[in-house]
Amino acid sequence: MRYLMTFSYDGTNYNGYQKQPNKNTIQDEIELALEKINNKKITIHASGRTDAKVHALNQKAHFDLEKEIDENKLKKAINSLTSDSIYIKEIEKVKDDFHARFDVVEKEYVYKINIGEYIPTDRNYIYQYNKKLDIKEMKKSFKYLIGTHNFKSFTKTNIEKEDYIRTIYDIDLIENEDIIVLTFKGNGFLRYMVRNIVGTLIEIGENKRKSSELKHIIESEDRTLAGKTASPVGLYLKDVKYKI
Amino acid sequence: MRYLMTFSYDGTNYNGYQKQPNKNTIQDEIELALEKINNKKITIHASGRTDAKVHALNQKAHFDLEKEIDENKLKKAINSLTSDSIYIKEIEKVKDDFHARFDVVEKEYVYKINIGEYIPTDRNYIYQYNKKLDIKEMKKSFKYLIGTHNFKSFTKTNIEKEDYIRTIYDIDLIENEDIIVLTFKGNGFLRYMVRNIVGTLIEIGENKRKSSELKHIIESEDRTLAGKTASPVGLYLKDVKYKI
Repeated sequence: MRYLMTFSYDGTNYNGYQKQPNKNTIQDEIELALEKINNKKITIHASGRTDAKVHALNQKAHFDLEKEIDENKLKKAINSLTSDSIYIKEIEKVKDDFHARFDVVEKEYVYKINIGEYIPTDRNYIYQYNKKLDIKEMKKSFKYLIGTHNFKSFTKTNIEKEDYIRTIYDIDLIENEDIIVLTFKGNGFLRYMVRNIVGTLIEIGENKRKSSELKHIIESEDRTLAGKTASPVGLYLKDVKYKI
Repeated sequence: MRYLMTFSYDGTNYNGYQKQPNKNTIQDEIELALEKINNKKITIHASGRTDAKVHALNQKAHFDLEKEIDENKLKKAINSLTSDSIYIKEIEKVKDDFHARFDVVEKEYVYKINIGEYIPTDRNYIYQYNKKLDIKEMKKSFKYLIGTHNFKSFTKTNIEKEDYIRTIYDIDLIENEDIIVLTFKGNGFLRYMVRNIVGTLIEIGENKRKSSELKHIIESEDRTLAGKTASPVGLYLKDVKYKI
């Protein structure tokens, strides 16, 4: 029996989503809870990893159980066994061939930046940039990024990986007083891709680069031409969509 | 030379604002920073204490220094010596007879409640009530609380303390999706007064009590008739005002 789980987490005190030897990760904690419930090791397969300190509002993962368990009871059982940094929102039965990573059709990320004064209570949830940015110039950048491109300039290059082609459906920027909220929707994002795009957008907002440089940065397929990797603080995996 | 300091803090990991023997408090941390800067013990006098886990957006405190220091340099020096949970926003020179507690003319507190689903990233910043509340009935309560009353029913009774008279200028409730933001403005608030009022308002929102009961609760001057003390999580000291 295959189950799909929707869950949220506060990544502040974790070494990211993905299981690592002797590291405190979201996946480890949920799998440990499932092991206690089932008296058997269970592997969960998420839509993708998130880095250390990155949050999720609606992460998705599938897993298989030999015996059928009521979805609501299972949800309550996992929530009672995980810390208050992790919350299982929903569990539903899915077809045996459903895959939480391979079947993704859209992912949405949000990145929050404080361009006003430092706020202690937001320090793990909104990137405390604390200086003004040229929002107009940042917005001009979006047209270069939206669409289907080779995003090799915005990821950690990996010899084995050959497919750097991704489609960004939309980028949006909303200003709410001193908080900037950037939204990225696409069919998938490479490792560090959102943070590297945000880092480049910040340099554009600092007027250190022009938005029009993005065309060349993308075409070059050269990581060294793009901006710095932005802080993981401020990044949220907001949603993951599947074909229905 | 007397200085007035405006500062914000994340109360999550502190045993409240006020100095206590062998406890980790906001006051201890700022006084330690001032001691390092001045090579001398300095006492800071805040507008009032805040409980463990309560945050401040604009707390105020005064202190005296023998030698004059540039306000901006002093701000930077304290910020470099305190943790990222505390932030000094402004330091200004004030008259020798100014007192950060006795000269208060208005205080503003905010209390945030999540009546929707549990959100891990908000767990230390918004009270996770996670059930619906009867907002309309809660709003009907405000007229009983606003004004000058003896608030003995809403505080920790203290034999030495005789004056339980306070004036609440205004109470406001804003709904932003599933987040309720309550704002309280008054000339001063007794210990636990905001949390005890919020606890009572929640019981009214649960329809366990009627808003009209508040008249009797206030008149009784009996703490046992009011509601439970609400969680410190969700409470923020938002502003402190002085005569100019």
